[in-house]
Parts: sequence; C-alpha cells; structure tokens
Amino acid sequence: MVTTQITLVQIDNYGPWTVTPEPRREVDLQTLQSRLYADLSQQVGREGGYVFFTRFDNMIAVTNGLSRADHELIQESVANRYPVTVSMGIGTDPSPRVALADATRVLQTAGSAQDRDRREILGGDLLPEDDRTDGDVRIAHFDVIDATGTYTDRVDAFETFIAIEQGYAALMRHMHAEHDSLSFFVGGDNIIATCPDLSAADYEDAIAHVSNEVGVELQVGVGRGRTAHDAGMAAKHALEDCRHNGTRVERALPAD
Amino acid sequence: MVTTQITLVQIDNYGPWTVTPEPRREVDLQTLQSRLYADLSQQVGREGGYVFFTRFDNMIAVTNGLSRADHELIQESVANRYPVTVSMGIGTDPSPRVALADATRVLQTAGSAQDRDRREILGGDLLPEDDRTDGDVRIAHFDVIDATGTYTDRVDAFETFIAIEQGYAALMRHMHAEHDSLSFFVGGDNIIATCPDLSAADYEDAIAHVSNEVGVELQVGVGRGRTAHDAGMAAKHALEDCRHNGTRVERALPAD
Amino acid sequence: MVTTQITLVQIDNYGPWTVTPEPRREVDLQTLQSRLYADLSQQVGREGGYVFFTRFDNMIAVTNGLSRADHELIQESVANRYPVTVSMGIGTDPSPRVALADATRVLQTAGSAQDRDRREILGGDLLPEDDRTDGDVRIAHFDVIDATGTYTDRVDAFETFIAIEQGYAALMRHMHAEHDSLSFFVGGDNIIATCPDLSAADYEDAIAHVSNEVGVELQVGVGRGRTAHDAGMAAKHALEDCRHNGTRVERALPAD
Amino acid sequence: MVTTQITLVQIDNYGPWTVTPEPRREVDLQTLQSRLYADLSQQVGREGGYVFFTRFDNMIAVTNGLSRADHELIQESVANRYPVTVSMGIGTDPSPRVALADATRVLQTAGSAQDRDRREILGGDLLPEDDRTDGDVRIAHFDVIDATGTYTDRVDAFETFIAIEQGYAALMRHMHAEHDSLSFFVGGDNIIATCPDLSAADYEDAIAHVSNEVGVELQVGVGRGRTAHDAGMAAKHALEDCRHNGTRVERALPAD
Repeated sequence: MVTTQITLVQIDNYGPWTVTPEPRREVDLQTLQSRLYADLSQQVGREGGYVFFTRFDNMIAVTNGLSRADHELIQESVANRYPVTVSMGIGTDPSPRVALADATRVLQTAGSAQDRDRREILGGDLLPEDDRTDGDVRIAHFDVIDATGTYTDRVDAFETFIAIEQGYAALMRHMHAEHDSLSFFVGGDNIIATCPDLSAADYEDAIAHVSNEVGVELQVGVGRGRTAHDAGMAAKHALEDCRHNGTRVERALPAD
Repeated sequence: MVTTQITLVQIDNYGPWTVTPEPRREVDLQTLQSRLYADLSQQVGREGGYVFFTRFDNMIAVTNGLSRADHELIQESVANRYPVTVSMGIGTDPSPRVALADATRVLQTAGSAQDRDRREILGGDLLPEDDRTDGDVRIAHFDVIDATGTYTDRVDAFETFIAIEQGYAALMRHMHAEHDSLSFFVGGDNIIATCPDLSAADYEDAIAHVSNEVGVELQVGVGRGRTAHDAGMAAKHALEDCRHNGTRVERALPAD
Repeated sequence: MVTTQITLVQIDNYGPWTVTPEPRREVDLQTLQSRLYADLSQQVGREGGYVFFTRFDNMIAVTNGLSRADHELIQESVANRYPVTVSMGIGTDPSPRVALADATRVLQTAGSAQDRDRREILGGDLLPEDDRTDGDVRIAHFDVIDATGTYTDRVDAFETFIAIEQGYAALMRHMHAEHDSLSFFVGGDNIIATCPDLSAADYEDAIAHVSNEVGVELQVGVGRGRTAHDAGMAAKHALEDCRHNGTRVERALPAD
Repeated sequence: MVTTQITLVQIDNYGPWTVTPEPRREVDLQTLQSRLYADLSQQVGREGGYVFFTRFDNMIAVTNGLSRADHELIQESVANRYPVTVSMGIGTDPSPRVALADATRVLQTAGSAQDRDRREILGGDLLPEDDRTDGDVRIAHFDVIDATGTYTDRVDAFETFIAIEQGYAALMRHMHAEHDSLSFFVGGDNIIATCPDLSAADYEDAIAHVSNEVGVELQVGVGRGRTAHDAGMAAKHALEDCRHNGTRVERALPAD
C-alpha cells in the first residue's frame, strides 16, 4: 500500500524580497534559486527523498524517511547559508495529491506566503517510523521516445522545448485529475511522478492521453520502494527495459 | 532596432551519460544540472547576458555582449569543473526565433546531441562589437496578477503550479508562433521573454490570448537595452509600474 | 573513553590532472577544490561528522557516525558531479593521530596518490555501531583572544594573517607531537582540534606553549560527544564561556 | 615595472554573526565560507584576477583589470545571495605589501571589522586603465619537489601536512619581510605569491631559506602579465619547466 509523505517547501516572503528595495539582478535570483534547489536535493536526498524544483520559490518533495528533526536541520542550514528562510508543510496520505493538499494547508493556515512575520514554519503529519514499509512510495519515470532523433537533432531548440513542454503539461494535468499523482519535469525529456497504487492500464491510458492530446509519445518505467530514491531507481531500471524491449510501460513491482 | 544574439548551450552526449554504466542517482543529476545552470547564469551574467534553464541539458541564452572568447572561456571552465562538457551554437538576428534556429543548426550540423565524438563545438555568427547599439535587446517580463492572493494562499500547491504552468504554456506558444519571441519560466509566477520589436498592442494581444485560453491573468513590463541585463532591469521596473498603476502593459522604451 | 574514527579523503591522481594536457586555470582549480570541500562538509555533516580542508586534495574528516555505506554514497555522489574521483581510508583509535596513520596506510598500501589506476579506494576499520558511546569524540575549539582588537583592526591584513598562521603552526605541531591531536585552521582566528582524553592542564600547557613560542594568545573550549558535531557544539559553547568569564580553558565534559 | 592592485575583501561583522543568537553549526559556516570563496574566485577570475582564501573572513585578491564597477557588482551579487555582506579596500603600489597595507587602511579607517554599522564599504586607489601594462603583475608559483614521493605516499597525512605547512610558514614570512611579497597556500603542495620585481637570485635565496629553516625543498616558476591570470599561467608553465629540467627557478619574463 502506498503512503506518500509530501513536504511543501516555501521560501518565506520571497516575492517582496526580490523587489526590495528595488528589483534585484535576475541572474542573482536565478543563481540563488537553483543553488537552493541543488542543496535541498542533496540534503533531502541523503535520506532517500526527492525534491522537485516546481516553481523554485515553492518546491515539492517526497520525504518518506525524513523525520521532523531532519526537516528542522534543513531549515537551520538554509537560514545559515542563504539570505532567505524556508517554511515547510508536511502531509501524509495514500494519495500524493491529498498529501500535498494537507501540506499546503499547514502553510496557508499559518499565514500568507507574503507575510513578513511568517517565517520558518514547520508543521503537518509525518509517517511514523514504525508504519513505514518497502512499498510506501511509487515513482513513475516517463520520457519521450527517441526525443533526440525526433526533436533535438531535427527541429530548432525552442520547437523541441515546446513539444516536450506540451507533453509535460498534458501529462501533469491528466495524472493529477485522473490518478491523484504529482508529475514534475526534471530536465531533458524526463518527467518523474509520485503516484498512488496504479495499474499498468492506468499508465497506458496516461500515455495514450498525451499522444492523443499533443502528439508526444511517452514511455514509462514504474518502481516502488521505501523511499523515493528506492522507488526511483527501480523506475529508472524499468525505463531502461522499455528502451531495450520497445515496450511502453514497464513496472518493477515484485511481490507487491 | 533589435538584434538578438542567442546561444544554445547543449551538454554533450548527456542522455547516454546519465545511464552509463547504469542509471545515476537522480538527486545527483538534479544537483549537477541546477549548479551548472547557476554557474552559467553567473558567468554569462558577468557580461550582461541571461541564461534560461529550459531543458537543463539544452539551455538557451541571450548573449549580446559576449564575444567568442567569452564563450570559449565558459566552455573551458565547465570542462575544468564538471564531469560533462558543453557545446555552443550562436545565432544573431532581429528575430530571436530565427537567431535560435540558426544557433541550433550549428550544433545539428556538427553532429547529434548523443554523438560521443562531438564535444565542445563552438560556432555560429556573433553580433560584431561595432554594430552593437543600446536598443539591441528587448526583454518582456510577465507575471501573474496577484498570484499569491489568487493561487498560492488559496488553492493547493499543485493546483497553483498547474495554473501557472498552463499560463506559461499558452504564452510561450503564442509568443513564438505570432511574435517570434522566446519565453521562459524563471520561477515563482514569472516569465521572461526575449522579443523583437513589438508594439504595446502585441503585448495586450498576448495577455488577452492567455486569459482567453486558460484564464490566467498576466501583466508585463517591457524594457530595451544593450544587453539582456540592461533590458531586463528596465522591464522589471516597468513591471513594478504595472503593479503600482494597475496597468497591464508598461514599456520603458524612451527615445526608441 | 575517546574512540575517534578518522577518514582520509584523497582526490585520485589530482596533481597530474591539474596539468594535463596543460596547466588548468587556477581559478577553476580553486573553485573545484573549495566546492568539493563544501559538499563534503554538508554530506559528512548530515551524519554529524566534520571535514577539514587541510590540503584540499587531501582532506581529513572525523567520521564517527558514518557507516561504510555512507562513505560509498559520498564517493558515488562525487563521481557523479565532479571531473575527479576520491579515495577514502578509514582508521579508528583512541588516539586521533594513530587513527589517521592507519587511515593513511590504507591508501598508501593500495597505491600512489598519483597512480592513474588507483581510483575510488575505500577501506579501513570503522567503529562498530554497537560500540559507539556519547564520549567517543573530543573536540577543542581554539581562538585568538581579541583577534580583531589586537590584529585585524590594527595591523595590515597580511601581518594579521602571519600572526594567526604562526599561532596555528605552533599549536598544530605541539598538539600532534605531545597530545596525539589533529588541529585544523577553519577560518578567521579559529582552530579546531580532534583530541584524545586530555586534562585541563594539557590545554593550559598547549596555550602557554604557543604564547611562549610565537606570542599569540589563545583560549579554548572543549566538548565531548557521540559525533564531531555534538562535541563541537559543546566546545563552541565552552569557548563562549571563556569569552564571558575571561578564562583560558573551559571544558564542557559533564559526567565523564 | 610591477604595479599590483590588491583588494582586501572582508566579511562584515562576521565573527559576531557566527555566534548570534548562539553558535551556528560549524559545517554550515565551512560551507558558507568556502562557497563564498569559490564564487569570488569565479567572479574576480572573469576579469583575470586571483583571490586567495587567506582567513576566509578576510580574503586577499590581486585585482589588476577590475574596475570600481566590477567591485560594486561583486558586492551586490554577494548581498543578493548570501546572509552576509562584504567590504572591500583597494590599494595599488609597485610593492604588493604596501598595496595591501593601503587596502587594509581603507577598511580600518571606515570602522572595525566587528562594527555592526560598517557595511559594504568600497574605497581605495585603483590602477587607472590607461596606466596598465603587460608587466604589471608578477606571480611566483612554488611547489614542493616530489611531494608525493617524499611525503604523501610515505608518511602519514598529518605529517605530510605539517611539512608542507611549515614550508609555507617559512616562505610566507621570508617573502613578506625580505621581498615585499604576499604568499598564499592554494592547496596540495602549491604556494602562489604576488611579488614586486625580483631577481632570480632573490628566488634562489627564498628557496634556500626554506630549505635551511625547515628542510622543505621548493621549486618555483615565475611569470609576468597584465593580470594575475596572465602572470599565473606563465608561472605555471615555468614551473613545468622546472619539473622537466630539474631546475629550481624558472622565469618566463621575456622582453622585460
């Protein structure tokens, strides 16, 4: 049974900060955001979690395996090294969609994202250590079939980008609306989704939906694990199987 | 008159590298990609350029002000500090869309993005230093009107993300197809576009298109300058004017 | 009883790499080295360990709390993100000096630091998890009494540096030769030492030695703990006590 | 004729910040310091300058080629991305020692390094662009002859470190007192010095002094250039000549 622990990481009062006392240099903002994301990736990753950059000022993480103390340590470390602080809301549920909604509510209840006095909030419900199992997390790793041959080497870089971006937009909406899943573009032609228990048919359906809606052909590997990393590595190997076997969906879900 | 110099930065043979000899840890790939992007932002930014993360393995930059030697130095610096190398194609044109198409062709002609032997390509046409003017670059900085009040503080973080992502998807396609512009999501609710000479009506039209297509309400500040940074800072200030004046389009284009 | 686990981190074949095919840009080498150190600090720090930059191509870490798998993960992560790899030798002993000698031998036995084929070695003896206690690590945190008033604000920046450097050189040799301790300059006027069980008189003696030899006046806070972080935080608080009480040695070693 | 422009970079009020409201985690301080140094290396390096980490909270840079605007941009960029700010004093003189003394005085006159209200100072005398020549900077790059064979592969890592550290301590004092030069350990067994016009005999003398005082055998390559980078690359190549020729001093100073 899937039980996903989701953490919403929000930079406190970030919008106002970026234009106070006047607009800050864009390259510095880009550097700050992407390095903060890189650091969170490493820190959350140490315990097996995944962070997705999402909007950069609001990042979504799969944090099965991270305790409250782990979250506090990351907040402290950010405050020690950046000119900004972060709040974190945590939610836990069989449905990643519901878990994130719960996590969001923790922050919204504490105040606005642009409240100067709402800083370093940490709250919400964690998955108790004793309840954790090897099947808690499902990760689906999608990519575009032969993206290099179909796009990158053939059309211009923005047309390629539009195609991949459209594939992503169609998939993210469908997986959210129909399958309670949160899907994230992670670079190249790769999309990683955190999902509840879904059948092979559900994935076939999602791939067909994207193909029909925007004409982008996806394949997907699915894995399960105790942490996002465990599930994600299984998914990557399953995706390799798609490449080698010419299949569209491969699931590495032994003894479910 | 606008003359945009665009550089396409492509990590050499990146896809195969990420799965050789077997799939690499996702958190390390995310860290590598986002730090490389942060470094390029700083390096290109030193000369007034902007880099957009785009697909991370293919990044698009506005590089007015960067010479061929500046590009070479960045390639050397990347090779000295990362396990990967980058190729760069450069294009220069009144239309950013055409400039990028030219830049893409430089790399495609040299070989595939997944060619093991195509490494550290550098080619294409730069804007000669003597031809540069204070009006070479147009930057439009869009954001969502009251995104925090409308979305972030009200609906869950993924619904907010979907809304912003849809607004971006609609805008990027429209600006590319109708206005030869390249638009990039840069975090939060912000989209930055590099544009040719466009009228205020063109921007009104783009905003109306997004509103009609996906119901997301945008505003935009437009600036011009010798470099992306110069134009971008003017655009940011113009966007502040939108916020203060309640207007949808503000252009800081004196003495055009 | 102190039992220190020391890890020697050595960049593989680094010297030859820096000049192949010709000397690389110094600023890139400096950036590579200091970022690698920063990353290792965070990674080792997640489990409570301390890394010291030492010679940068050879870094020494106090790694109580890090398992063999933790070490492997760090090696993999470095290989995924840097153009170089690292080998690690581990030693465990009541004497930090002996632990490091053992750790060094692991690498020397496996081959030369400039052997092209000796890569990513990992070996040596770890402290078994079951044998760990809250008194395993002793950290002494030294600084120069009123360094700002005596030096930084009064003499030129290089004279200040020479004074602090001389104080460090005298202390590191004395603590190694007389007290089996490894002392590291960590920036500003701060020196952190990993020590065996030493008496207050031993620290008084070390401070007097430095005062007599080079005229630099030190104070020291000493802490103990299960990890370097635990011991180090206790030492920092003890050093604050020195500042407030005007004492030269403060030890936070309750219930030893 | 040598004319060195030296910049002293000082983190504002850093000591108090590290212990307010209570001592911050050492690994975060180490990460902050080393990343700030890495960033400054890249930023100063873009214009051909060198930064040395020195005490980390006080860094010394050779900044020939950097304008006042370049300095301001770096200050702004640091403030945008770090929880601390930096002040910079600049001095210009044929003697690096005098240039640094002048640079130090700029900051000392403006207030204490631990003054809460002294922030982002920028002052001092720059070398006018029109006065710059290809011989302005002299860089001497020292290393230990066969450090790997003599030390790294033979004795334990701390004994090696002590030897190299002693060699550095002896050299830095001698070069400062006798030859108005500023010498910095840059990792491995490498020391880089910024020097006035010195003869080959002066370098022979320095090497002999270190050999006599602490028994560490050095060799040195010397280069000149318009910037630290130009001079430093020439010095690196000259040092390669020492290695190949078995000589102790090589100078790449054509047509002085």
